Amino acid sequence: MKRIVTGIKPTGDIHIGNYAGAIKPALNFMKDNQLEPFYFIANMHALNSVKDTDLLKKQTLEVAATWIALGLDPQKATFFRQSDIPELFELNWILANLTSKGLMNRAHAYKAMVDQNNRADIDMDTGVNMGLFNYPILMSADILMFNADVVPVGKDQVQHIEIARDLAEQFNHTFGETFKLPNYYIEKEVAVLPGLDGRKMSKSYQNTIPLFCKPKRLQKLIKQIKTDSSLPSERKDPTSSPLFTMYQAFATADETLEMKRRFELGIGWGEVKESLYTVMNRELEKPRVKYEELIAQPAEIEKLLAVGAEKARSYSAKKLKEIKEKVGLL
Amino acid sequence: MKRIVTGIKPTGDIHIGNYAGAIKPALNFMKDNQLEPFYFIANMHALNSVKDTDLLKKQTLEVAATWIALGLDPQKATFFRQSDIPELFELNWILANLTSKGLMNRAHAYKAMVDQNNRADIDMDTGVNMGLFNYPILMSADILMFNADVVPVGKDQVQHIEIARDLAEQFNHTFGETFKLPNYYIEKEVAVLPGLDGRKMSKSYQNTIPLFCKPKRLQKLIKQIKTDSSLPSERKDPTSSPLFTMYQAFATADETLEMKRRFELGIGWGEVKESLYTVMNRELEKPRVKYEELIAQPAEIEKLLAVGAEKARSYSAKKLKEIKEKVGLL
Repeated sequence: MKRIVTGIKPTGDIHIGNYAGAIKPALNFMKDNQLEPFYFIANMHALNSVKDTDLLKKQTLEVAATWIALGLDPQKATFFRQSDIPELFELNWILANLTSKGLMNRAHAYKAMVDQNNRADIDMDTGVNMGLFNYPILMSADILMFNADVVPVGKDQVQHIEIARDLAEQFNHTFGETFKLPNYYIEKEVAVLPGLDGRKMSKSYQNTIPLFCKPKRLQKLIKQIKTDSSLPSERKDPTSSPLFTMYQAFATADETLEMKRRFELGIGWGEVKESLYTVMNRELEKPRVKYEELIAQPAEIEKLLAVGAEKARSYSAKKLKEIKEKVGLL
Repeated sequence: MKRIVTGIKPTGDIHIGNYAGAIKPALNFMKDNQLEPFYFIANMHALNSVKDTDLLKKQTLEVAATWIALGLDPQKATFFRQSDIPELFELNWILANLTSKGLMNRAHAYKAMVDQNNRADIDMDTGVNMGLFNYPILMSADILMFNADVVPVGKDQVQHIEIARDLAEQFNHTFGETFKLPNYYIEKEVAVLPGLDGRKMSKSYQNTIPLFCKPKRLQKLIKQIKTDSSLPSERKDPTSSPLFTMYQAFATADETLEMKRRFELGIGWGEVKESLYTVMNRELEKPRVKYEELIAQPAEIEKLLAVGAEKARSYSAKKLKEIKEKVGLL
């Protein structure tokens, strides 16, 4: 049994690009009975960008409802909200004292901001807050607190796991064996879905299809997806078609093969769009209903999160006690 | 009624220089019935330098026993150990997200380290850990959590109170009126006691007189205090005499005046040392007994600190709830 820890940032306006690229692969781990999943909503991490009470609450509830609707089973997973686990912030402070500032100077997210500021010829720390700068320390606390064996990450996040390992080793060396060294698991090439305009689907391009929009709206948005002006009878290249990429993300392997064949024989864009709607709606229909049920009952979501917090704290409270004893704080 | 908040760093080997320069003036506030004192042992701040389990525990108990022995009344003051208040570390993280990194770059303690590294021509962040770099944020949390009206500080600490005010204002502006703006109170010229060799009494010079050493040892150490070779009958300058400075810190105003007169008439150093021992022992005798009683019963100290923690948390738990609601974390 290996414990897997995943943080979910509470972002707004979840779209099918987020679903195919991040949520679906993360939820796949739920099916593996050799894994013991810990999923948490990283609302305390989100503070470095969200400074709006209602928005943060709304996004937290939406993200919880979305993941549960899509198959996160709060019975199987320990599913909680980061801010409900006070022990994380004590460990965060303890680890900070073992973290050299030089290590943080070299962290990717911070360096990216500095590079951007340098290019704009403004002070290198413009717009950097200490939530961003300390991010890898709290993330280490998230991971180490729960003795994670595996943390699934994108390539750009590998450094964070290395930092968590560094801090774990340093703590163990200073105060005696306490933390398990976590491993990262780089997810295979994830699906990058194109948006309505053919560019990568992204909130910032305003080209998204909301994950749980109503069927009619879904149909309407699919119709807006950019296509070329080739005639129905003309041969089409599936590899350069955003419609095909999207279809593939929702169709079975057989359906995809069949669609590929139809592209090569010639198919009208209207027909492709119809088929895309069919497979997409097939996959999202039930979760959509479940999502709508859940989001209409925030108290139910709160209840689930409270159960998750209790489960998580049954680990973290014990672990923190061990940590504090080792450091000499008790 | 004004609330006054004071952090006490758990340092080892407390000497009479610490007593006269820091502890005694801080304890004077206890006598003011217009003040509601919160005193806490800043053991989580100490982590940036102490990384030794037993030493941290020992120093925490010693500092608690010392302050209580010297008159800190745990009935009157809310006296607690920082690490017993988990809410502080949640607030610390929340505030970090409102703290620009630029502000921390300019914090004195950090800048002093950078200056030192620059002079040594090594990387500017050598030896800087994130406990040091984040210090002013946790200190702000310590102050703001308890709605401090006044924080007594040395001149070099004024900046920290200004940072706490900044963060309070920023939080209030972003999330609505929540924190009281704290004021600093700069302590009057504090007594700087000379050590055995005439230089400032300091652990690093190894010229200290331990605060609660046994009478015999105290007497012996006083005898070691450096004097010049003037004869008993010679006129002596009180202003340049370490013995006189020490005497003044423990004698009444009348006694001091009388000693000054004796200096001018001529007095033997042995006699001065005798008098110094008398006034010093007079002041430290009772506290020394109390200290020895306390330090022999660590469980009793723990009990007092537990009561203090409960008192402090009756504020901090409520305050944090308010804060988290405002931010959108609940």
